Amino acid sequence: MEGEKQTGIDAIGEFGLIDRIKDIIGDQVDETLVKGIGDDAALIATSKNEVLAISTDTLVEGVHFDLSYMPLQHLGYKSVVVSLSDIAAMNGLPSHVTVSVALSSKFSVEAVDEFYKGVKQAAETYGIRVIGGDTTASLKGMMINVSAIGFMQKGKVALRSGSKPKDVICVSGDLGGAFLGMHILEREKQEFKANPEMQPDLDEFSYLVGRQLKPEARIDLIHSMNEIGIQPSSMIDISDGLASELIHLSIQSKNKFKVYEDKIPIAEETRSASMDFSLDPTTAALNGGEDYELLFTLKLEDFEKVKNHPDITAIGYVEEGEGATLVTRSGNNVPIRAQGWNHFRDQS
Amino acid sequence: MEGEKQTGIDAIGEFGLIDRIKDIIGDQVDETLVKGIGDDAALIATSKNEVLAISTDTLVEGVHFDLSYMPLQHLGYKSVVVSLSDIAAMNGLPSHVTVSVALSSKFSVEAVDEFYKGVKQAAETYGIRVIGGDTTASLKGMMINVSAIGFMQKGKVALRSGSKPKDVICVSGDLGGAFLGMHILEREKQEFKANPEMQPDLDEFSYLVGRQLKPEARIDLIHSMNEIGIQPSSMIDISDGLASELIHLSIQSKNKFKVYEDKIPIAEETRSASMDFSLDPTTAALNGGEDYELLFTLKLEDFEKVKNHPDITAIGYVEEGEGATLVTRSGNNVPIRAQGWNHFRDQS
Repeated sequence: MEGEKQTGIDAIGEFGLIDRIKDIIGDQVDETLVKGIGDDAALIATSKNEVLAISTDTLVEGVHFDLSYMPLQHLGYKSVVVSLSDIAAMNGLPSHVTVSVALSSKFSVEAVDEFYKGVKQAAETYGIRVIGGDTTASLKGMMINVSAIGFMQKGKVALRSGSKPKDVICVSGDLGGAFLGMHILEREKQEFKANPEMQPDLDEFSYLVGRQLKPEARIDLIHSMNEIGIQPSSMIDISDGLASELIHLSIQSKNKFKVYEDKIPIAEETRSASMDFSLDPTTAALNGGEDYELLFTLKLEDFEKVKNHPDITAIGYVEEGEGATLVTRSGNNVPIRAQGWNHFRDQS
Repeated sequence: MEGEKQTGIDAIGEFGLIDRIKDIIGDQVDETLVKGIGDDAALIATSKNEVLAISTDTLVEGVHFDLSYMPLQHLGYKSVVVSLSDIAAMNGLPSHVTVSVALSSKFSVEAVDEFYKGVKQAAETYGIRVIGGDTTASLKGMMINVSAIGFMQKGKVALRSGSKPKDVICVSGDLGGAFLGMHILEREKQEFKANPEMQPDLDEFSYLVGRQLKPEARIDLIHSMNEIGIQPSSMIDISDGLASELIHLSIQSKNKFKVYEDKIPIAEETRSASMDFSLDPTTAALNGGEDYELLFTLKLEDFEKVKNHPDITAIGYVEEGEGATLVTRSGNNVPIRAQGWNHFRDQS
């Protein structure tokens, strides 16, 4: 390809790259494939009423995790959780995972044991089976790939594209905590570098550090909505930050998503730590990512059934139109732009 | 884990590591899981008569491929083929793949395009669908993970463990070619380094170079055996070399595998190039790997139906006992030991 124009990946970002790949691969929808590239998980019809959801996630040392503060057992746990969360985002219940790791020679067998103990712990917590994977050498650092599988009734599937005007926009749990947890861990790392004698005291930040090191997939909420008998009209998990996920739902649903700043659920611990770091807590919630909570839309009558649910918060509603808008505390309408993580840009 | 004993991964190798991981993860067999860790693909029962086969493979730059002679389009093709071959090894027909890549900033968007063109070409060749994946940054080089899925009738599954004494041991195609192809490409690379003006002339080696750069998964043979109505009693794909795969079948079947040196199919091109490199062609076939042919066992009456098949060669038979034995041209019985690839050792 000498002489041809070469474009840096950082110039188009991950989403630009995915769009380009979609163009090359072409339309892959057939009679068995319910949904291909472009949702949290791919869906394949296995019978008239059942679909298989499959998601795959890659985690790279130095890009997605830092082993200087991420214990390997937590990393094993989190790697599985990240993948299960994608199945939850389809309104599915995961049943099986494959876990592949590539490792450089700096890793000991005992380190690999620690990682897989975390994998097993996640499997036990979520009642899923680890059915395979691949172990191989890497030239540098550790890379992890987890694929998760779940089976679900066709009518249960929640795509990114399903919202309708007047639907209520909801999130589970609280947002921004994992982002602050990362800031706290980074600060401890720098302080430890400056003064290795110092013992880190993370007790007062245990909630936020836990959000970063040991997030949970909201499978509980999928069960809960199933039991109440409500069906999200659209859903996505919050891996890159609320802003980015709102824009995904808006683009794929071809609707406008309007959310209210004062409704966004943010824990006290997150607000307090945001002040320490001179960060705006709303920005942490919008752009922080890694909370692995669910963002979904409900028909108004369905929302009535969960409006007192302690873990579900309505943050706005769907309108005709396009884009995502934040109504600030002062009543201004501010367009939401995805900042999320451009790992390709972070790196360069 | 300070103060605890640390064991280098190279001391136990990939298979030792997999055994250790199996011990930690524990027995994952349940009512839905037909087969977990330890075969070419995992199997999950989706209905009373149907199972889902899923395989996952990770390819790491500098470990599994060298971009100085591996064109990215071929790499995309080969990455898919490697994963499809695992489904074929279960006697299954693959239907869908997910393709994930991690890339450092040295890669251009155009390079990613080339890779996915190869992915698409493989999808078209094999009539499968690319249904998702993940793209992310890496700190160094390129890493690829492909998961393949296929659905099959439960009665069609060929495990590694199914052979019976008196079964005929068969291989498809010819062996050792991919290994010689790699030697030729390595030699060209060294010559190019010494004299960059030189134009490589690989025409006379096109068969062997093609075996290395653009292998095929033997889906054609799965169709062919289906049509003839024969069922392999055990099967594995030859990714690490015939020796290693014979030992896998022997251990998992709890039988002895006896093969005849003069029966091992080796192409003329492979024999001739082996002489150039002062290599024993039998060693290339036994330990070379990456041919992605199939090694399988057939009941004698089934073998009768394919004995004239141009692409199937009987190389020996199964006996009661354990281990794998090579009967040399001179009639000696030599125990076969797996050399294959220990990427962890290669690296250190």
